[in-house]
Amino acid sequence: MTSFSPTFSEIQKAAERISPFAKITPVLTSSAINEMAGAELYFKCENFQKVGAFKFRGACNAVFSLRDKDTANGVVTHSSGNHAAALALAGKLRKISVHVVMPQNAPKVKIRAVEGYGAKITFCESTLEAREATLNHVKNETGAIVIHPYNDERIIAGQGTAALELLQEYPMLDTIITPVGGGGLISGTCVASKGINPDIKIIGAEPKGADDTFQSLIRGEIVPQTNPQTIADGLLTSLGDKTFPIIQKHVDKILTVSEEWIVKAMRLIWERMNIIVEPSSAVVLAALLDHPGENVGNYVGLIITGGNVDLDNLPW
Amino acid sequence: MTSFSPTFSEIQKAAERISPFAKITPVLTSSAINEMAGAELYFKCENFQKVGAFKFRGACNAVFSLRDKDTANGVVTHSSGNHAAALALAGKLRKISVHVVMPQNAPKVKIRAVEGYGAKITFCESTLEAREATLNHVKNETGAIVIHPYNDERIIAGQGTAALELLQEYPMLDTIITPVGGGGLISGTCVASKGINPDIKIIGAEPKGADDTFQSLIRGEIVPQTNPQTIADGLLTSLGDKTFPIIQKHVDKILTVSEEWIVKAMRLIWERMNIIVEPSSAVVLAALLDHPGENVGNYVGLIITGGNVDLDNLPW
Repeated sequence: MTSFSPTFSEIQKAAERISPFAKITPVLTSSAINEMAGAELYFKCENFQKVGAFKFRGACNAVFSLRDKDTANGVVTHSSGNHAAALALAGKLRKISVHVVMPQNAPKVKIRAVEGYGAKITFCESTLEAREATLNHVKNETGAIVIHPYNDERIIAGQGTAALELLQEYPMLDTIITPVGGGGLISGTCVASKGINPDIKIIGAEPKGADDTFQSLIRGEIVPQTNPQTIADGLLTSLGDKTFPIIQKHVDKILTVSEEWIVKAMRLIWERMNIIVEPSSAVVLAALLDHPGENVGNYVGLIITGGNVDLDNLPW
Repeated sequence: MTSFSPTFSEIQKAAERISPFAKITPVLTSSAINEMAGAELYFKCENFQKVGAFKFRGACNAVFSLRDKDTANGVVTHSSGNHAAALALAGKLRKISVHVVMPQNAPKVKIRAVEGYGAKITFCESTLEAREATLNHVKNETGAIVIHPYNDERIIAGQGTAALELLQEYPMLDTIITPVGGGGLISGTCVASKGINPDIKIIGAEPKGADDTFQSLIRGEIVPQTNPQTIADGLLTSLGDKTFPIIQKHVDKILTVSEEWIVKAMRLIWERMNIIVEPSSAVVLAALLDHPGENVGNYVGLIITGGNVDLDNLPW
């Protein structure tokens, strides 16, 4: 058996490392949605995590994994989304400096959140090239350590702690579904879940308009995400060389979903469960409802990744 | 000391009685809101309760308190809101018939919910007189037992189980705030909370435009709610002769809040906590934020009563 990094034991260590800072999020259920899905669903509510997303788990684990002597120049990342805020908060908690490269057109609310945690922002053009060039520039100027949003063992281990908690509370789950963007969450979920129960099924959910993981698994190599078209703005990224092998080995299936089902599932969760989830989170329920013949499992865990939405700009 | 009904022991019995059916709802926190309020706040999320509101606790306790021989003709109530759905579900679970008198102009979504649980609806004019006359008619026709939405010991005892759970989980709370409509929730909260900790402070929150409890406590008698003007549509009712004495004896203070603060607090909870709460629930946080000088307490429990809102008709 190939040995991946992180290992199950690294996920257990991550759980211990982040426990003074991260929330143990509640798991919610809805009889009405169970009836529609024909299964018992357990929603792990990372929308209640610090900064409103599971991303805090990975960022917190990465920042608190650093040796003291490596923290002097702080950390740096590029992100327009939840990872930026997560790293900013984690750095604030460890009292180290955090640099974030953000595109000029990032949503104002996300910029304010990152600033609110005291991180230093460097703005750039919104292309991937400009972001990476600016990241390198800041890294060389400051000596900060780069913390990639997903292609990093410490991040993957941190994200895996959500599934660890979920299975500790509900060990009878036979399936877990997570969304797939860059693959950090699903990789960590695989290692955590298979470490507890080797027979558990792991399913990835992806928008049809950003189905690079589906394509990558068919071709047997990373197919980059180009020109993604989806409302699920957390799932626009390509896989990394650390996440893809774990996905190849452990993920049982990728289910792709239409934009229509993403919005329908999102509204269903808002109405029936009274929680606010972002489109990227709704993709997991959409996968179940858009594939009624799949017979996914009887006890299904769904990772609700985050709840950062603009209330003045809802998709209905 | 006057002895009220229900007693603390009846609330404990209610908790046991409803435990196979009601959810133990999670308690959520938000550092950002704590900072604004200058206290540690613990939100008891009854918006995640069955039917999306604490009302299920009382209805479930009332229905399962009935002796078998009293259930043959079912139960009846009049309500256009959450109590109707709660009673309908409780009756369905006990397999007895439920009759609900609803005004013709009740929201379609609430009518569908009540029908969905298999209750029989009798429509009437929306005046209180028409509703009570129709209730009496249905009661006489069917022999059903009337379950009042709040002026009933079994309902009060059931509603008190939310505070019981909250204090079992967070015994250090020094204050609990609930909204006040007919007084069922706050009465049950008083009996449960003072039964656990006689020194705990109980605060009621009321819209300025529906401040009949505030007025009633000043006058020393029930001042009926006439022509209430508020977005908090769960708080339009008058107190009852079973709830008012408990409130008089045990509630430390009523804080009244402006409509502007209700909407601001509602949006704040949506944005910072990623949960959906109805305006009547937001009144508790509005009370804290609208009265910054009050020095309410250091560890404050807030009962979030429900989350049934029309997503196509939000107040911002």
